Amino acid sequence: MDKIKVGIIGAGGYGGCGAIELLIDHPNAEIVALIDKQDLGRPISDLYHHLKGFCDLPLIDADDPECPTDFDVVFFATPDGVGQKMAGAWLEKGVKVIDYSGDFRFNNQEIYKGYAARIGKPQEHASPGLLSQAVYGLAELHRDEIAGSSLVGNPGCFAVSCILGLAPAISYDIIDMGSIVCDAKTGVSGAGKNPSPAFHYPARYDSMNAYKVSGHQHVYEIERELGLIADKDIKITFTPHVVPLCRGILTTIYGQLKEGLDLKKIIEAYHSFYEGETFIRVFGPERAQSSTDVRGSNFCNLSLNVDERTGKLIVVSLIDNLVKGQAGSAVQNLNIMFGLEEGAGLLHPGRYP
Amino acid sequence: MDKIKVGIIGAGGYGGCGAIELLIDHPNAEIVALIDKQDLGRPISDLYHHLKGFCDLPLIDADDPECPTDFDVVFFATPDGVGQKMAGAWLEKGVKVIDYSGDFRFNNQEIYKGYAARIGKPQEHASPGLLSQAVYGLAELHRDEIAGSSLVGNPGCFAVSCILGLAPAISYDIIDMGSIVCDAKTGVSGAGKNPSPAFHYPARYDSMNAYKVSGHQHVYEIERELGLIADKDIKITFTPHVVPLCRGILTTIYGQLKEGLDLKKIIEAYHSFYEGETFIRVFGPERAQSSTDVRGSNFCNLSLNVDERTGKLIVVSLIDNLVKGQAGSAVQNLNIMFGLEEGAGLLHPGRYP
Amino acid sequence: MDKIKVGIIGAGGYGGCGAIELLIDHPNAEIVALIDKQDLGRPISDLYHHLKGFCDLPLIDADDPECPTDFDVVFFATPDGVGQKMAGAWLEKGVKVIDYSGDFRFNNQEIYKGYAARIGKPQEHASPGLLSQAVYGLAELHRDEIAGSSLVGNPGCFAVSCILGLAPAISYDIIDMGSIVCDAKTGVSGAGKNPSPAFHYPARYDSMNAYKVSGHQHVYEIERELGLIADKDIKITFTPHVVPLCRGILTTIYGQLKEGLDLKKIIEAYHSFYEGETFIRVFGPERAQSSTDVRGSNFCNLSLNVDERTGKLIVVSLIDNLVKGQAGSAVQNLNIMFGLEEGAGLLHPGRYP
Amino acid sequence: MDKIKVGIIGAGGYGGCGAIELLIDHPNAEIVALIDKQDLGRPISDLYHHLKGFCDLPLIDADDPECPTDFDVVFFATPDGVGQKMAGAWLEKGVKVIDYSGDFRFNNQEIYKGYAARIGKPQEHASPGLLSQAVYGLAELHRDEIAGSSLVGNPGCFAVSCILGLAPAISYDIIDMGSIVCDAKTGVSGAGKNPSPAFHYPARYDSMNAYKVSGHQHVYEIERELGLIADKDIKITFTPHVVPLCRGILTTIYGQLKEGLDLKKIIEAYHSFYEGETFIRVFGPERAQSSTDVRGSNFCNLSLNVDERTGKLIVVSLIDNLVKGQAGSAVQNLNIMFGLEEGAGLLHPGRYP
Repeated sequence: MDKIKVGIIGAGGYGGCGAIELLIDHPNAEIVALIDKQDLGRPISDLYHHLKGFCDLPLIDADDPECPTDFDVVFFATPDGVGQKMAGAWLEKGVKVIDYSGDFRFNNQEIYKGYAARIGKPQEHASPGLLSQAVYGLAELHRDEIAGSSLVGNPGCFAVSCILGLAPAISYDIIDMGSIVCDAKTGVSGAGKNPSPAFHYPARYDSMNAYKVSGHQHVYEIERELGLIADKDIKITFTPHVVPLCRGILTTIYGQLKEGLDLKKIIEAYHSFYEGETFIRVFGPERAQSSTDVRGSNFCNLSLNVDERTGKLIVVSLIDNLVKGQAGSAVQNLNIMFGLEEGAGLLHPGRYP
Repeated sequence: MDKIKVGIIGAGGYGGCGAIELLIDHPNAEIVALIDKQDLGRPISDLYHHLKGFCDLPLIDADDPECPTDFDVVFFATPDGVGQKMAGAWLEKGVKVIDYSGDFRFNNQEIYKGYAARIGKPQEHASPGLLSQAVYGLAELHRDEIAGSSLVGNPGCFAVSCILGLAPAISYDIIDMGSIVCDAKTGVSGAGKNPSPAFHYPARYDSMNAYKVSGHQHVYEIERELGLIADKDIKITFTPHVVPLCRGILTTIYGQLKEGLDLKKIIEAYHSFYEGETFIRVFGPERAQSSTDVRGSNFCNLSLNVDERTGKLIVVSLIDNLVKGQAGSAVQNLNIMFGLEEGAGLLHPGRYP
Repeated sequence: MDKIKVGIIGAGGYGGCGAIELLIDHPNAEIVALIDKQDLGRPISDLYHHLKGFCDLPLIDADDPECPTDFDVVFFATPDGVGQKMAGAWLEKGVKVIDYSGDFRFNNQEIYKGYAARIGKPQEHASPGLLSQAVYGLAELHRDEIAGSSLVGNPGCFAVSCILGLAPAISYDIIDMGSIVCDAKTGVSGAGKNPSPAFHYPARYDSMNAYKVSGHQHVYEIERELGLIADKDIKITFTPHVVPLCRGILTTIYGQLKEGLDLKKIIEAYHSFYEGETFIRVFGPERAQSSTDVRGSNFCNLSLNVDERTGKLIVVSLIDNLVKGQAGSAVQNLNIMFGLEEGAGLLHPGRYP
Repeated sequence: MDKIKVGIIGAGGYGGCGAIELLIDHPNAEIVALIDKQDLGRPISDLYHHLKGFCDLPLIDADDPECPTDFDVVFFATPDGVGQKMAGAWLEKGVKVIDYSGDFRFNNQEIYKGYAARIGKPQEHASPGLLSQAVYGLAELHRDEIAGSSLVGNPGCFAVSCILGLAPAISYDIIDMGSIVCDAKTGVSGAGKNPSPAFHYPARYDSMNAYKVSGHQHVYEIERELGLIADKDIKITFTPHVVPLCRGILTTIYGQLKEGLDLKKIIEAYHSFYEGETFIRVFGPERAQSSTDVRGSNFCNLSLNVDERTGKLIVVSLIDNLVKGQAGSAVQNLNIMFGLEEGAGLLHPGRYP
């Protein structure tokens, strides 16, 4: 079989780099072009030296007449607002689209507007007609829809962490749905490649902080997904924090247990919900889960605990924000959309220490 | 006035070092002896090179006949179990005692036993007769008792962070007392000076984890203190995490707001509760608080937020675990016990970056 | 005696912040105004939260009619090119000037032009007439001239480290002057406050690199100072590196030993050269010197080693780049210029860990 | 073809883990047993959680009757002193041996004794008869001997960095052989898995130091290899430093240039020397090389600079100490010993950021 031809738009950012790292080892896909607006003509390995000899394609403008167009799929590894303007043209050519931003996470113009306001870009969606085709790209919940779709909105990194940690508890009605608190800690790579005062090394190396307390935009997709499972509206409290490491999201999830449930049953429920899943590992409280357990890999590790004294379920949910939280999920979606093995190109354990 | 003569027992650990750093600049106190069981005869500046020329006293065994005894106060900068055996002898000589461990945080043998079991040392207290004299050394809540006491149990670092963040909310009946979640993140210095696999640099530098989920021993003193304020039993959910920085505790505290309260009133309540306090700074949600705001200083910074969507109070509480969470509180207690200015030797801003 | 009135120009950068931290604890000096071009009207504690309650002066434009002018001394904590334009006006009013940049490190227009070309600003000096008055502000070598001067060019951070490590070896003719290699490693705070791609946390946290190999501008002042001591031209090889820590410069200095010298004599020579110096500590090879030994303090630690196999002197020179390498030297110079105790406001050990 | 069967002795350390990470992706080799003295019976993925599902083999004692013995090759990922006692028995069974320690880096009992004294284990070699069979496992210099050998002494991490950076300069007689200085900076993973005070996170996170100044044991193999190339004795000055990152060695190498050489010729010489090498990348001074360029990969990056002012060649040599400096070289040697593609299982770029 011919390899799937992939174009990466926004290739110069961390999200592009992550996709390149995965695709150069992918048995069934190959990168055909790296598209961006900056650093045109420079080989990607000039920006990311470690890629030298592995991928030396130059960055090219999508408007450049020499830019290839014979893709099977394009990744929009771009910020909010780009994919919604450009995806339509690719779809019309028969090219599938996987978008990293919030542009296609909502199949509804109204919810999108709430999200857009939250990220400070209050606007109508540029391609509302596409929203209804878009599928939310969290494979563990929407595998079949992804398989049949040409337009996938890759999920937000915090959302992956929270939704995977909560889905079984919601599905099996384990916790009081009004009691959910998600306290998330992210590494700094989640802020992307562009430098800013808050992520300048001297300001960050020995520093941690909460931010957007009660106001982070990923809440929208978390609540939408949980609501779909529960078949009713759910509101959660979500607080993100930045801690001084590079890769990883650890979300500590709290929910008031329903009566009559014990840890054993809960662990069974989680195992049952995720049965057969390649990238989900479920644990009890038996060991301290660390973000390095999933660093550099596409896994989500969940550890389940019950606080007997207060009757709370406590789920510790771990992902690598740049892999399962971004490029890894994108490649997993690619695999599903093209009928490949879901783990193709993704079965790496990462490196330690 | 003569300077207060201080002896530090367990001087070679981080808690001893922190006390030395503060006391060498203290206008009204001086260090007379550094007592330990290891590194005997070596100047402390051999262990902590930065102290060279500032404090070069040798470490001496308490049993050494040359060990000074003419102290006004001794700090037990020692692990659980040491102070309870040795404090009595000093008190009998008229020397006041400030103990860093859990040995004198509980004025009740029963609560102490629960605590002792939690730390894996299930035992009777070695000096139960002293427990009733012991005062819990959180100055903002027990200033008058500390002033009149000869035996102070310095609070646990997480406890300082949680109690200071919650006391006004409990006192003014702002939140549902059954709904409290404290999600704490600590720097690695909280683990003390002894190396271990979990805190080995390669294992820790890019790693975060939850630990003792629902089982940390500081819960005992937090619940006791909150219960005293509320005049009823309170149970909280408390989850500590280790993140890869050196100094700082950030606790994100969640509680369900009572009806009819808004952020403005809550901010007023906190300002009112802490009026006149030297080391408490209260903020609204206006800026991201960072652990570096209090690094190296004795301050506790509190920022107050309300999640309107879910009706939750969210308090972000910040301290330096080695200062306000340990040696700084000890010196603050010393100042109170001897009638000095409460801020003497403590009014430093720390260093940045 | 009235306190020395200090104005800080460029107060918002790390160099300004460092001066504020030192001066708020200084017994004989006080900050009167914080001058900058950005963040006008904002209290400095808005930029540096840890200063809240210690220094809340607003940033003010030097051209603002309300800007105080009754200073005894101004610090130009500004980049190259600022002091040389503005210092003259202050000097005419009788205000002494301490400049952090390279603007007044060279009392000679020709050498300055070489330096200026090296930093990418090839230009004539804006106030050549002032150059002859300027004194190089390395107190250990130029104390008397500093005492009599109104215009001091504070030394470069790498230069402090290299010159203090080499001065005795040159003075006592210990090494072959053509053989000197200085291999310097700096923490990231040396890059200043402004974010850039190279110092973005994810790019820096686990990364080290050499830069400006053979082309760093501090070489000029190092060679000039060493040449003054030797009374002949000296050329050195100097390679700076950035390593992922915040504060500290460690320079490993190599020189071919002259015949007949042994380690004991060399140690004596260094002790003799620095006899009576408050801020220099000389050690033999007996222990591993760490950058934390001087972190947060104004000390320079030197450890002396001889490689018997190759006949090389190896000096490990340690400073905190933001203290002895910048603000601490500036305050030390202030003390000397105003006849104060040289250690006034500077005798702090820093904090550990 | 059947896969090469590999046994790893000392599998629980970082060196074992590194080999496992590489071999689980290796197309022509498979791990048959993980041998150690500790944690017996525990799956390796209990010690290294990221390996879960990739390698869950239990640790087994070599003396356990159930321990497999049908290996084609064993890796001794063990400290000095182990391989020399145990290798002979495996060799007699026809199993090839690759040893990570210094046990088989010297084919001469006298040199070995010097080395052994340096590491504090002054002793006769336990199997002197094997020394003459042992080949030094630096593939770029000894490929043919490795191909024909059953016993390879894998090189020391610093030695790889220094030798690869200097070999062309020695071979082409570019520098004065008496003038060589190697200033090496290593990440903390080089210290191995066992915790110790110097590598405890709070002691290390913002700290750097030189150590074993002029006394590091890797000097022996560096001088031996350079001497073989030069066909005469060479002595170098070598100073290792620890800096607070995890993976990477950056060695800055200085040598006095011979007359008549310019940078262009030197770059040509290096390119010529390493022509056809898979894992060596040669650069001029055009860009700052960072340790992240080779992090997680088996490459050695060399950048070449000339200091025109002092006539010095300055080579910046970069490797990942755990890959090219350890497990990667071991797998490269395995590939050569069994006639596989030299890059088999090793052509990964690492991950960034």
